[in-house]
Amino acid sequence: MSKVFDYEEVAKHNTAESCWVILYGSVWDVTSFLPSHPGGSKIILQLAGTDATEEYDPIHPPGTLEESLPSSAKLGTIDPDTLPKTETAPADDDPTDTGPPPLEDLLNLDDIEEAATKQLSRKAWAYYFSASDDLATKSHNNTAYRQILLRPRIFRDCTHCSTATTLLGHSVNIPIYVAPAAMARLAHPDGEAGIAAACARFGAVQVVSNNASQTPEQIVAGAAEGQVFGWQLYVQTERAKSEAMLARIAKLPAYKFLVLTLDAPVPGKREHDERSKNIGANLPIRSSVQEGSASTTSPDPEAASAKEIPAPTGGVGKALFAGTAPDLTWATTLPWLEKHTTLPIVLKGIQTHEDAYIASRHPQVKAIVLSNHGGRAMDTAPPAVHTLLEIRKYCPDVFERVEVWVDGGIKRGTDVVKALCLGAKAVGVGRAALFGLGAGGQQGVERVLEILKAETETAMRLLGVERVEELGLQHINTRRVEQEIYDGPANLEGPSLWEKASTAIKAKL
Amino acid sequence: MSKVFDYEEVAKHNTAESCWVILYGSVWDVTSFLPSHPGGSKIILQLAGTDATEEYDPIHPPGTLEESLPSSAKLGTIDPDTLPKTETAPADDDPTDTGPPPLEDLLNLDDIEEAATKQLSRKAWAYYFSASDDLATKSHNNTAYRQILLRPRIFRDCTHCSTATTLLGHSVNIPIYVAPAAMARLAHPDGEAGIAAACARFGAVQVVSNNASQTPEQIVAGAAEGQVFGWQLYVQTERAKSEAMLARIAKLPAYKFLVLTLDAPVPGKREHDERSKNIGANLPIRSSVQEGSASTTSPDPEAASAKEIPAPTGGVGKALFAGTAPDLTWATTLPWLEKHTTLPIVLKGIQTHEDAYIASRHPQVKAIVLSNHGGRAMDTAPPAVHTLLEIRKYCPDVFERVEVWVDGGIKRGTDVVKALCLGAKAVGVGRAALFGLGAGGQQGVERVLEILKAETETAMRLLGVERVEELGLQHINTRRVEQEIYDGPANLEGPSLWEKASTAIKAKL
Amino acid sequence: MSKVFDYEEVAKHNTAESCWVILYGSVWDVTSFLPSHPGGSKIILQLAGTDATEEYDPIHPPGTLEESLPSSAKLGTIDPDTLPKTETAPADDDPTDTGPPPLEDLLNLDDIEEAATKQLSRKAWAYYFSASDDLATKSHNNTAYRQILLRPRIFRDCTHCSTATTLLGHSVNIPIYVAPAAMARLAHPDGEAGIAAACARFGAVQVVSNNASQTPEQIVAGAAEGQVFGWQLYVQTERAKSEAMLARIAKLPAYKFLVLTLDAPVPGKREHDERSKNIGANLPIRSSVQEGSASTTSPDPEAASAKEIPAPTGGVGKALFAGTAPDLTWATTLPWLEKHTTLPIVLKGIQTHEDAYIASRHPQVKAIVLSNHGGRAMDTAPPAVHTLLEIRKYCPDVFERVEVWVDGGIKRGTDVVKALCLGAKAVGVGRAALFGLGAGGQQGVERVLEILKAETETAMRLLGVERVEELGLQHINTRRVEQEIYDGPANLEGPSLWEKASTAIKAKL
Amino acid sequence: MSKVFDYEEVAKHNTAESCWVILYGSVWDVTSFLPSHPGGSKIILQLAGTDATEEYDPIHPPGTLEESLPSSAKLGTIDPDTLPKTETAPADDDPTDTGPPPLEDLLNLDDIEEAATKQLSRKAWAYYFSASDDLATKSHNNTAYRQILLRPRIFRDCTHCSTATTLLGHSVNIPIYVAPAAMARLAHPDGEAGIAAACARFGAVQVVSNNASQTPEQIVAGAAEGQVFGWQLYVQTERAKSEAMLARIAKLPAYKFLVLTLDAPVPGKREHDERSKNIGANLPIRSSVQEGSASTTSPDPEAASAKEIPAPTGGVGKALFAGTAPDLTWATTLPWLEKHTTLPIVLKGIQTHEDAYIASRHPQVKAIVLSNHGGRAMDTAPPAVHTLLEIRKYCPDVFERVEVWVDGGIKRGTDVVKALCLGAKAVGVGRAALFGLGAGGQQGVERVLEILKAETETAMRLLGVERVEELGLQHINTRRVEQEIYDGPANLEGPSLWEKASTAIKAKL
Repeated sequence: MSKVFDYEEVAKHNTAESCWVILYGSVWDVTSFLPSHPGGSKIILQLAGTDATEEYDPIHPPGTLEESLPSSAKLGTIDPDTLPKTETAPADDDPTDTGPPPLEDLLNLDDIEEAATKQLSRKAWAYYFSASDDLATKSHNNTAYRQILLRPRIFRDCTHCSTATTLLGHSVNIPIYVAPAAMARLAHPDGEAGIAAACARFGAVQVVSNNASQTPEQIVAGAAEGQVFGWQLYVQTERAKSEAMLARIAKLPAYKFLVLTLDAPVPGKREHDERSKNIGANLPIRSSVQEGSASTTSPDPEAASAKEIPAPTGGVGKALFAGTAPDLTWATTLPWLEKHTTLPIVLKGIQTHEDAYIASRHPQVKAIVLSNHGGRAMDTAPPAVHTLLEIRKYCPDVFERVEVWVDGGIKRGTDVVKALCLGAKAVGVGRAALFGLGAGGQQGVERVLEILKAETETAMRLLGVERVEELGLQHINTRRVEQEIYDGPANLEGPSLWEKASTAIKAKL
Repeated sequence: MSKVFDYEEVAKHNTAESCWVILYGSVWDVTSFLPSHPGGSKIILQLAGTDATEEYDPIHPPGTLEESLPSSAKLGTIDPDTLPKTETAPADDDPTDTGPPPLEDLLNLDDIEEAATKQLSRKAWAYYFSASDDLATKSHNNTAYRQILLRPRIFRDCTHCSTATTLLGHSVNIPIYVAPAAMARLAHPDGEAGIAAACARFGAVQVVSNNASQTPEQIVAGAAEGQVFGWQLYVQTERAKSEAMLARIAKLPAYKFLVLTLDAPVPGKREHDERSKNIGANLPIRSSVQEGSASTTSPDPEAASAKEIPAPTGGVGKALFAGTAPDLTWATTLPWLEKHTTLPIVLKGIQTHEDAYIASRHPQVKAIVLSNHGGRAMDTAPPAVHTLLEIRKYCPDVFERVEVWVDGGIKRGTDVVKALCLGAKAVGVGRAALFGLGAGGQQGVERVLEILKAETETAMRLLGVERVEELGLQHINTRRVEQEIYDGPANLEGPSLWEKASTAIKAKL
Repeated sequence: MSKVFDYEEVAKHNTAESCWVILYGSVWDVTSFLPSHPGGSKIILQLAGTDATEEYDPIHPPGTLEESLPSSAKLGTIDPDTLPKTETAPADDDPTDTGPPPLEDLLNLDDIEEAATKQLSRKAWAYYFSASDDLATKSHNNTAYRQILLRPRIFRDCTHCSTATTLLGHSVNIPIYVAPAAMARLAHPDGEAGIAAACARFGAVQVVSNNASQTPEQIVAGAAEGQVFGWQLYVQTERAKSEAMLARIAKLPAYKFLVLTLDAPVPGKREHDERSKNIGANLPIRSSVQEGSASTTSPDPEAASAKEIPAPTGGVGKALFAGTAPDLTWATTLPWLEKHTTLPIVLKGIQTHEDAYIASRHPQVKAIVLSNHGGRAMDTAPPAVHTLLEIRKYCPDVFERVEVWVDGGIKRGTDVVKALCLGAKAVGVGRAALFGLGAGGQQGVERVLEILKAETETAMRLLGVERVEELGLQHINTRRVEQEIYDGPANLEGPSLWEKASTAIKAKL
Repeated sequence: MSKVFDYEEVAKHNTAESCWVILYGSVWDVTSFLPSHPGGSKIILQLAGTDATEEYDPIHPPGTLEESLPSSAKLGTIDPDTLPKTETAPADDDPTDTGPPPLEDLLNLDDIEEAATKQLSRKAWAYYFSASDDLATKSHNNTAYRQILLRPRIFRDCTHCSTATTLLGHSVNIPIYVAPAAMARLAHPDGEAGIAAACARFGAVQVVSNNASQTPEQIVAGAAEGQVFGWQLYVQTERAKSEAMLARIAKLPAYKFLVLTLDAPVPGKREHDERSKNIGANLPIRSSVQEGSASTTSPDPEAASAKEIPAPTGGVGKALFAGTAPDLTWATTLPWLEKHTTLPIVLKGIQTHEDAYIASRHPQVKAIVLSNHGGRAMDTAPPAVHTLLEIRKYCPDVFERVEVWVDGGIKRGTDVVKALCLGAKAVGVGRAALFGLGAGGQQGVERVLEILKAETETAMRLLGVERVEELGLQHINTRRVEQEIYDGPANLEGPSLWEKASTAIKAKL
């Protein structure tokens, strides 16, 4: 029988010499673990002597404690009556608020975000909302859609309308998927499994984040018959860990494809996230997909976060980058990956026509995702709309060779339709799903999908289109965006890099 | 002699089991009618046990009650002394307001809208003001005019200036008509007949909405000698109803042409309207032009409104769409229509040069209206200015084959003049007329027409133009807009749809 | 000896039956004059029974009373002790203001306007500030300059810099002139003569408004040796009046040229001005240059103001337009004018290259002024910068045939320099001079000229230019504006009007 | 032993007849010096009878007093207990502020500026912040970078990343240098030497201002081994002074090159600076690099400030311009300079491709700096991004003949990378360094460099680039800016000036 502690006793052990924390009602002595904590000892010490459950829970998947600490570290249980009262301050703390509005009153994705902003903790909000530098690309991702006009046709029978399509050969009900975004439980206890349940209801694909806050097994445990999942992969510097994860995913048939994320080999600079660090947003976390206590990831929805400004010596920054491999190349990574998986490969993070071209010449690549990481990697990177138009301009056969997916900036069904008109096979929503989760758990995600589906159908009907395959360039006016698309002839430096690259590739093929 | 009820008694019958309402001083038992109410029972139940006259009156034309309910449902009359006092809250409820300003102090259409906003109920305002999604097209409709510059000429004798012109062969005093907009009595008791009286005074054409809040007969009852009306037609799924309406209109010689509305086969998503639903804006209504109690329309100024996000099962949404036919086509609808009317046909809702081209090849079409439904159907649809320029660019002979009218975004006489310079024969104002009605009834509509006429004359004089026929491309600079017009060569999908369509048409002719 | 009245006695005569007013300390019975007052009786009746001096004085030149009324109408004098105290509310009535700042603290023309706004009466401010409709052209006049970039050169000896140039053969010290703007005494008692004194100090040309608030003789009475004035002419419907005025000007050798204003044959719609009507801004006025009591002008700085929305019958509007001739033409007006003056003729109000071309083919025209009447005539008319570029594009030899002056939107010396680079020989400032007058009388106007001259010199030096003649297209980058210039080929209506016109002209020559 | 004065005694000597001031605890009689003070006597008289140390110190380098006054003028010392308490009001005086935030919490250059704004005196802030006229060019300098998009590449090994490069043959660790900006001690006592220490830590070049607030010797006294400095030169009207300075610099081997500033032959009009004159910002100053008491410069970071609006007679303005030579030319200045220095020459202030072309044809010119003086000279001058693109368009071989540096508008590492992609060899930061100094002295400057270096590395890695030499046009999309670049064919004035100039030059070579 375990010993019962008073909070007053625990509170005394708040130093590096003797560091106790309360987790899920138990008292743990983590003193010996301090030096090996992936995110450094400082973060634990900030919580030393307190109940750290609230901070710990949403960012550590089940089993983390047991994997990391010997059973002897569990000293006993806490007397709950001795715990101080806690207060949680939501991001938008308006005393006149009287709880969240009913989901049915949230009419669009902005409403959803607003409602979630009032529900989420400040740190979760900062984590989801943030993007690089001045948020120029995050904003441009959306405004690029708004610059495109739609061309409604008349006298078209729009009695019937279907958003059904196929992705990598799998039938789906909507051309909208949930993009990989980390740590869903920061938003709501329903977590990634809640997103999965919502996707099941709408026949939508879900790409699970490499840094999910639930295990890959938990997320697909309740999957519907035929429900399709993708698994997002960040290649680890220690390739063996990535290989082990690939083996683990191989045992879960719900995962139908791999999404290799390439748009954040190093973290962007997300200042909203940075500024909330004192309230915990930057707590390095133990993702569900890491094997062993030494691996480290951070609370980026997709990639490893990091202290943005490494000290000139580079010490701290280097430590935090540990884990995610920055050395991927066309020549080495895809061959390695093929050895360890039989799943179709999707490359995420294409931002130029050159890379789209090269990818389309690699037979093992079945789809590419035009993405700038939701504006969280390079600020002033082009929005997916630009890359779609660039591919159209320079190498349109890419659309015939691989499926082209896009993410970033989708807020309306008209945005979905515009992407499809430009050649996209599917559009991903990341923040919207997380804000849906924040606004109402699984039901909130369903509301997001319901809104987007209905808006997409209305737009299709008004265009006089019955099936998504019919959508094409004749339905849109892109004049305003075309004037801003990369224009090769301005490149005066000789043959562009992609030409050299494609020559090399062709030589290989 | 009818029984007299106390309000307290009526108030008890507020359930689906026993549902009474007070209408025009009478007490009705509508329990048996609940299942067949076009808008569903819920809306009636919200008013169960109360005096529903204020909500009912402005959106149901005379005769609706008698058509829908047996005389036995009329239980008696209410003792007016027992009624509770009611309060009406205008849209802009500023306690410092001291009533509306004199109409002569309203100098432009923005002033008119501002004054109306203070007079209208919140639900009427939301209904008139709203447009789809983010209001991008509603705004663009106006800003597209402002991007065009006028080119005043000197040394022109501008002693005389006439805005007179002809529409479909009928002489009119101004090239401005009142576009079809539903439910005028929401704005003011003068209703559509008040608009008619104002039009008479200015020699302007009025196109009466399919969903008017007065009967077609009432509206033209006081028509002036030679006054010209058009009738707007939404084709009903039950064609027989539309045919009956055509027969009814045929008996009213004031109606000189038919306007077939095509730009809203399904309703757009109007969130301002949605958000006011709890105060009644979305009450499904019994329009004056529907035959029989089963038909349903809704309070869209032009088309059927609907709950925007159909439940995934589609049940509610489908029910609300009922009535307006979504299956119109070039091949079937025009031949059918010709069988049932001898009036000239105007097609409203053209938004591409392709559809303008096709329409101009149908001999029975005498005019087309370039319209995006006031921004209420597809958001990010092109403004009429774009479509005018598109036609000029691709198929300018359209202007010689049919009259081209435009609506949407007109706020100034300079806007009117610009549309005419681009080839429009007339411009329609919808919201402006309704806001005029809201600001001052018939006199408010007159003020709108007076302002636009005077501004148009001033602009013509400063251009050195005496008659509207003289206005042409030499009077405007459209460089800024031209750069945003749809540009065919971007269509990489093979021959454009209109080419195929026109080939098919030509084969027929 | 005249009778002395108490204010109480005068105050009783406040009706159309007996209407007295106090003017300059005298009591006048104006009852019999009411029907013939140019602006209608209503305006006088608003002041009936009161001391109207403050409203009357700034807008009636000396001699008006005596011309209009018989001496018997002067009943006597007022006992000043019986007058009520008056309050004047400035346009920007901030109780924390402690008087105007010293002129030397006003660093730019915005400062000057801000200071003047606090000094001027609301009605004077509205009158000067207002422009047509939405003020789009007033704003564009300035932003068009800001869209042009300057191209500073290095290693140029800028020890010396001279802004001197010639206008119509007369030497001037700066290429900046004061444009004709009416009723300067509304701003300050120094009036037009104060502007003249300021111009003398800076060697600047002044074009005196047709509707000046001082007589032509008064204005030039203190002229410096060699000081150059122009006289602005609005042709009156009664040509004899204009002819008399030309004869009067001919006797004043300081007036070296005539400026025939053509950009406002009818008044624009200036709503700021309209809205201040209740406080007197629209008082029809007795301009110094009208002969006889029947002529009417209004307080437009340049042209006749009018109630913007004529009643449908047109009665009131027509009455107010009376006076200024709307029937000027190339064929009739210039020949008539040549008969009645020997002065060089300047045509003001050119807004298209067509009219510039035609004007340049008329040998009696020595200069043209590209002007849209300060944005007060046609809203969305092109700024002078556009017309300059249009002429460069279509008919650059205009610059060799006539002097091209511009006005509108000048706020900085860089604006002056840009206009000169584009080919302008001089730039006019209208509102700036009036605001200078409002901010500090003659010294305020001097401050305006001092600022513009210094800024112009700085800009010239930084461009490496010593004399204004050296300024050219190589010193500016107009890419952003060029994209918005009228583009002939868009004119699909056959040969443009100017071609026809020039053919006709050439046939004559 | 010196006499000790009470403050009360000193305070009596506050007139032109007897003028004492306290400086560094000593009491000086400066009565006889009043007429010869470079900035005029008025400025001293404002401080007469007070402790002027605070105003005097940051803008006068050591030795100034001793040079200017005889030792007899030092009357004695002040009894410090008698001095009144002083208060200093920072620029942004928010009583809720609780001191500056830790430097590590300042995440970007905007944060740095905000923190500095709260630390700096109003006059120092105005002096650093100000730019010409409407600040259009200051703003454009930055927004031009934001209009350029970056093109991240995938599958690039970004393990290694180096910002090292060479400038004029000298190895540096970052392609960012501190641009010459005057009077650093206004911001912080660390002054220019503090900037030098920060540069040493980051391996950055510092260009020392001609108007530094420390002597050239002091600034390089603590230089690190191999640290590189440049010396900014304004040529004085009295060439002998400039020659003496060149001789002095020649003795300090840390100065490796000369930067001849050409973009401000006359001062721009900086109104923020003007408006703060009453609190001392415009105090004419005794720069460290002037020899003898008669020379005058002013507190422009780079050039001589001046009363912007010279009196019409030009007297005051002329006096203040004294010192800096406005008569530099290609033909005379470079040959003269070559006689007096052996250092490589850098020309600063190129704003057109013509001048870049000419400079590149002068063999003694080793680098050019595209600069508009931080927007402080000509307003609406082009940003460096424009000039880079202009050179690319007209005469790209300039990049092969000379090093091209840029300054102005740099706020982000992405801005740095964009400039390098366009061909710049290095980018300078002026205000950022001064605001860093203001925010935290030497450490603040280090923070600025740390942020820019880290952001630059992140941007390089996301582009897939390891060394700065690899950056090229293929990494950027400049479509939006290209549309605004000067376009030769618009020059209709015959052969452009640069052609003539280059012909002349070629003839010489």
